[in-house]
Parts: sequence; structure tokens; C-alpha cells
Amino acid sequence: MEYPSKLLEEAVSALARLPGIGRKSALRLALFLLRSDADVSRDLSNSVARLRSEMKYCVRCSNMSDEDLCRICSSPSRRQGLICVVADFRDVMAIEQTRQFSGTYHVLGGLISPMDGVGPEKLRINELEARVMNEQVQEILIALSATMEGDTTAFYLAKRLEPYRITISTISRGISVGGELEYADELTLGRSIQHRVPFGSQGY
Amino acid sequence: MEYPSKLLEEAVSALARLPGIGRKSALRLALFLLRSDADVSRDLSNSVARLRSEMKYCVRCSNMSDEDLCRICSSPSRRQGLICVVADFRDVMAIEQTRQFSGTYHVLGGLISPMDGVGPEKLRINELEARVMNEQVQEILIALSATMEGDTTAFYLAKRLEPYRITISTISRGISVGGELEYADELTLGRSIQHRVPFGSQGY
Repeated sequence: MEYPSKLLEEAVSALARLPGIGRKSALRLALFLLRSDADVSRDLSNSVARLRSEMKYCVRCSNMSDEDLCRICSSPSRRQGLICVVADFRDVMAIEQTRQFSGTYHVLGGLISPMDGVGPEKLRINELEARVMNEQVQEILIALSATMEGDTTAFYLAKRLEPYRITISTISRGISVGGELEYADELTLGRSIQHRVPFGSQGY
Repeated sequence: MEYPSKLLEEAVSALARLPGIGRKSALRLALFLLRSDADVSRDLSNSVARLRSEMKYCVRCSNMSDEDLCRICSSPSRRQGLICVVADFRDVMAIEQTRQFSGTYHVLGGLISPMDGVGPEKLRINELEARVMNEQVQEILIALSATMEGDTTAFYLAKRLEPYRITISTISRGISVGGELEYADELTLGRSIQHRVPFGSQGY
């Protein structure tokens, strides 16, 4: 398709890089921006720019945050001695949606994956161990996807945290094997938190 | 849904103002931007900002353009004496896609719609009349939507341009190519019978 203007072509190309948006949808979005109020474009442009460059991450749990310490870590109503270990901040949002979890989080920033060259040292596991040593941690709840990488990471964490006398639990396998955590429905995910079981009791 | 960060919430809100994108898709897009390279966000932010603020419109036909005069108006291979009148620059793109039109355009910027308070004075009709007076125009092809507003505007244009001795034509209406007769609406089918043409004249 030939575009009447370079600016339009550039906007279409940039929009079409978003997942699930092809060039035809991108053109529709660009034309919408052109004919709507200037503040629609301005808000979009500003918020996209700020999202990436100004986003802060909690110094304690690495979740997205507006302050140094995130809302969950600084909340007096959350159980500070219960830490839920997740791969990604999308998982935090998914678990918060269930309203079944009253503790805090620790975002690893990924999963151990030798195939992709991701070893334990690339994840925030040292930071987790430091929390276990320095905070009054009673329980670590491992909430990772039921995939090869998730299981490997869970196993590694359990071994690594064994010396500390804390309960290590994992969300129950109500989630289908091979399923990604962020796509699980709220009910299943919520129940799997309620019915968490001691690590190792589910026969990996 | 509660968002862990104001920046994320703002980005989701801005993205969800785009047509066809709900808050769930907007969240997916925002998280994609967060985890992809910084230049994806930067390109998107810049091109959206520039699209709206730097877009030029052809001084002659009002189509989108990079220069004062658009590519079509400044092309020596286009018939300058044939002007296709359209409501919107999206219509220009649609007609250009067909590769069946060798003239130039005139973008009205809308259609007459008393219900929405759009009278002829809000459209670029004076500019069209000025072109008819000052340029060597032989034919005006009216290509407007087959709606109440489109027909009203076409009728108004035909009246207004009557004094000038030029051909005024309109795109043909009828059953779409490949369309099943039994599924065509009554009005279209009725008109296609009223405006029947000699067999063989439509280049089957």
C-alpha cells in the first residue's frame, strides 16, 4: 500500500509493531488519531514514552511501583512474613486479581532456562535469599508456571532455601500442566493459592 | 482492576481510547512495551506525537501530504482537469488502491449533515468552486458514500457547480462485484434496475 504521507507511514509502522495489530488495523488507528482531538495523541505519546523511561520497580520485591517501596510491600495489612515468588509482574497482577493472597511478593524477573542462557544468577534469587536472612520470613510460596522452566526454577529455589527453617509451599496443580500462569482463569488460580501444599508433596 | 503503578494505569487508559482496543488488550500492549526494547516505545511515542502535530495537508486538494502540494497534485502523469470529490482522505486511499483513477482529488473534510450541525460552509466547497473557476477543469467526479448525507452533499455540489460548463459525474451504484443478487438490499437492487446500462458496457 502506498501512503500519501511519510508521517502516516511511520505511525502505521510503529503501531503495527504492537502485538496483534497488523498494518490494516494500524492504519485505522493512525487515521483515528489524525481526526480525533489533539490531546488523544498527546496523552498516548506521553504515556507511552513515560511508561518505559520513568517506570520504577520496588527496591524490595521488584514489582512495578510509583515509589521506592511498592504499595504491597508498604501496606500494613499484608503479611510481611509470607512471600509469594513469581516470575514476572504480570503474575503479581494475576494473583492480586484473585484477592486470595494476603502476603507480599518477590518478582524473579524470569525463569531458569538453560536453553535461553538464563541461569539462576540472572534472576533475583540472591535478593530473595537476602530477604529470607534479614526479614522475619515464615513462608515462601512458589507460584511459577507449570512448565519445564517453572518446575526447574521451583526445584532450584527449594534446594537453595532448604537451609533456612521456613515453610516452602507451592500453588496447587489445579493449573493444567504446560499452562502459562498469566492465562489461567481467576478461580483456578485463586483455589491453587488457597490449597497450596508443602513443596515436594506433589511428585515432580 | 487495580494497577501496581500510576504510569501503567495511564498508559492503559491512553491505549484503551483507541478504537477496538479494550482495557485488557491495552494492558497487554502496555506490558509488551515495558518488556520490549526502548526504541519500540520511543518510535511509537514520537511517531504518534508527530503524526498529529506535523501532518501537512495539500494546499490545493487538502489530502495528506509531506509537501505544500501533495504527490498526486504535483504529478505530471495525473489528469489535472479531472477532479474526484471525496469526503475524507481515507476515501483517497481507497480509490488510489483501485488504480482506476488518473485524475486529481478534492477532499471536502466531511459531508453535509444538518443533524450534526455540518452545513456546506464547514466543508471545503468554496475551495472547490475556486478550483473550477481558476483551473482548467473539465470534469468533476463526485465519489461520496451512498447515504443520506452523501446524497445531500452530492445534490448540493451539483447545483452549486451547475453554472460552470463542466461535466459532473458520480460513481456508479449497483450490486457489488461478486455479490449475490438474493442478498442485495431492496434499495440497491431497485436502483441498479433503474440505472441499468447497455450489456457489455461495464467490461465483464
